[in-house]
Amino acid sequence: MKGFQFNGIAAGIKTNGNKDLGIIYSQRPASAAALFTTNKVVAAPVILGRERIVPGICQAVVVNSGNANCFTGEQGYKDAVETACVAAEALNIPEDLVLVSSTGVIGAPLPMEKIHTGIPLVVGDMAWDKADDFAQAILTTDLAKKIVSKTCTVKGKTFSVCGFAKGSGMIRPNMATMLAFVCTDLDISSTLLKTALQKACDTSFNRISVDGDTSTNDMVIAMANGMSGAVLEDSDDALEFQQVMDEILLELSKMIVRDGEGATKIARITVRGAASAHDAFLAAEAIAHSNLVKTALYGEDPNWGRITAAAGRSGAMVDPDKMDLYFGEVALVMKGEWQGVDAEKEAAREMKADELEIILDLNLGDHSDFFMFCDFSENYVKINADYRS
Amino acid sequence: MKGFQFNGIAAGIKTNGNKDLGIIYSQRPASAAALFTTNKVVAAPVILGRERIVPGICQAVVVNSGNANCFTGEQGYKDAVETACVAAEALNIPEDLVLVSSTGVIGAPLPMEKIHTGIPLVVGDMAWDKADDFAQAILTTDLAKKIVSKTCTVKGKTFSVCGFAKGSGMIRPNMATMLAFVCTDLDISSTLLKTALQKACDTSFNRISVDGDTSTNDMVIAMANGMSGAVLEDSDDALEFQQVMDEILLELSKMIVRDGEGATKIARITVRGAASAHDAFLAAEAIAHSNLVKTALYGEDPNWGRITAAAGRSGAMVDPDKMDLYFGEVALVMKGEWQGVDAEKEAAREMKADELEIILDLNLGDHSDFFMFCDFSENYVKINADYRS
Repeated sequence: MKGFQFNGIAAGIKTNGNKDLGIIYSQRPASAAALFTTNKVVAAPVILGRERIVPGICQAVVVNSGNANCFTGEQGYKDAVETACVAAEALNIPEDLVLVSSTGVIGAPLPMEKIHTGIPLVVGDMAWDKADDFAQAILTTDLAKKIVSKTCTVKGKTFSVCGFAKGSGMIRPNMATMLAFVCTDLDISSTLLKTALQKACDTSFNRISVDGDTSTNDMVIAMANGMSGAVLEDSDDALEFQQVMDEILLELSKMIVRDGEGATKIARITVRGAASAHDAFLAAEAIAHSNLVKTALYGEDPNWGRITAAAGRSGAMVDPDKMDLYFGEVALVMKGEWQGVDAEKEAAREMKADELEIILDLNLGDHSDFFMFCDFSENYVKINADYRS
Repeated sequence: MKGFQFNGIAAGIKTNGNKDLGIIYSQRPASAAALFTTNKVVAAPVILGRERIVPGICQAVVVNSGNANCFTGEQGYKDAVETACVAAEALNIPEDLVLVSSTGVIGAPLPMEKIHTGIPLVVGDMAWDKADDFAQAILTTDLAKKIVSKTCTVKGKTFSVCGFAKGSGMIRPNMATMLAFVCTDLDISSTLLKTALQKACDTSFNRISVDGDTSTNDMVIAMANGMSGAVLEDSDDALEFQQVMDEILLELSKMIVRDGEGATKIARITVRGAASAHDAFLAAEAIAHSNLVKTALYGEDPNWGRITAAAGRSGAMVDPDKMDLYFGEVALVMKGEWQGVDAEKEAAREMKADELEIILDLNLGDHSDFFMFCDFSENYVKINADYRS
């Protein structure tokens, strides 16, 4: 991917010595688009980001983990501005082309002395092949770094797209429920980029559930610097680019769910045959968010009663006597009727897999939707009972 | 309490030999009112109950645990009718004066031979002082039985009210999120009784959260047989009766939360200063349902960031810079500002208690609401991963 450099270092913001300060830098100012959390309590970087994204240009993003810079009042906002300012000086670019992003504990002031010391170090050592270091530096309780990259062509010219994400808890669809960054060397307007980003988010980050909480810091930023020479104009067919964006964000989403706090396996619930698109969404969302469904997944128990009950309380139109439910290939319920002990045993076998496909057919219409979610283990509780200690 | 008899026996519906068949019998047909789950997937006893409650009269309620008789199709409905029929014969009363109620595993057929054998036994041995046996027979994963009784006077005449509940998981406010039964020897119309029941539910069963799932079997039934001689007429001031109903249902609700699956402690979140009543409800509900808040409660971590973030995503109008947050007597956040290490240490001390009072003042208006909830421990996961095995 042409014209992007990355880095990630341990600046001492995290107490465990892990990497906690990362940077994405484009040699040229890039077209940029971003989506932010819908939570009304928002972190300082979100407030600053909403302002700075307006002209649709960005050249660098500084990300710290270990501290969310949220609920830090006016000082928090000043600290976010100062972080961008320090980075702009080190990079010798205009201050308003720098976005900042933070993730970690809410309520503690950003340790500015560590930012001041860290930024020249992280900037001084940037390179095109340090994307892994960046991916590492943005993690909190994540166990694995999350990068996906693909190449694509437009009018015969090749370009690359690379996506990064972090996220493991506080995951609930809401524009964007974690931090994610997408870089491409495609030449594209910020308007087209935003459309593609929004579409891709709707079928990826907005369709996953770890625990049903929405963070105060969520953002997805996309940057396109055009340095590949490939140009996508307003009049062009953006289908192929959209497909690559969709794939990258979907893969990142799946990585987030797989790395869900305490997760041992993941599932995809597809609700089809719904009377409306909204009904399909509601039923899939309720099932994916249900603690009882998540614990049954963990226990490898094909507890179809919990799935149908969650659909029943979702607000979607449902008729119990019309429902079909499949675990993988196994039809466990047909027209509301349980298919017996053998079917249940087969369904239980399906659940042994790392990844389960569940299909609920409401048989009331043509609409469908899906969610990806992880199971719920004792470790989720352990991780979150001890998070700040 | 005059004119009521109870019993509870082990009829073999549960595999562990615990009590699983209970009865409430009134010597006279009683005024009756009921509220049912809002889940669209409903158990057979709910379908039957909605029909039979219409005339506002009931003389007996048969309750089984260990089997929800839900998602059992037409046969399930027939089984519910037959259960009532067998009880009516044993009691020698009209069949349509019998309500049935079930709780337990969803999707398995009701074992009718055990119902046939059990009902004559449970009826044969009823007594006014066997309320405890009834309370025991309606439990599933509950660790403790839940009975509250009080006396009250109207126009100088004394009457009694006794409430029973079961519930430990699948607890989310929605008319009535568990089974509960209220008996009184007051003389009152079914219309007045229903009003009082609805009001009392709104500030009790509809204000608790264990895990955010809503059962398919929930119902609350109230019966008033008038045998105390105390009469409450339409024109009378029902305030005192309402207060007793409120107190009983609130105490039962608290018992349910305290007995929440895996719970080690409980909390009451009060949201005040909201711009509207609905905002107060939304914020309190989001906080009470948040897995992250529940796990922090378990970890005795005064994690105010999670509480304010839950309020932020609730849909309620909030302004982070105006929020005050108290743990017990300790002000941890004032006008959006964290009150420092000492305040946090004091708040952590407050959390050592069995029962925590949290107050979030939005400082945007005059409205308030509350929720009671339990913490979220590894045991919740254990209980629900293994429930059917």
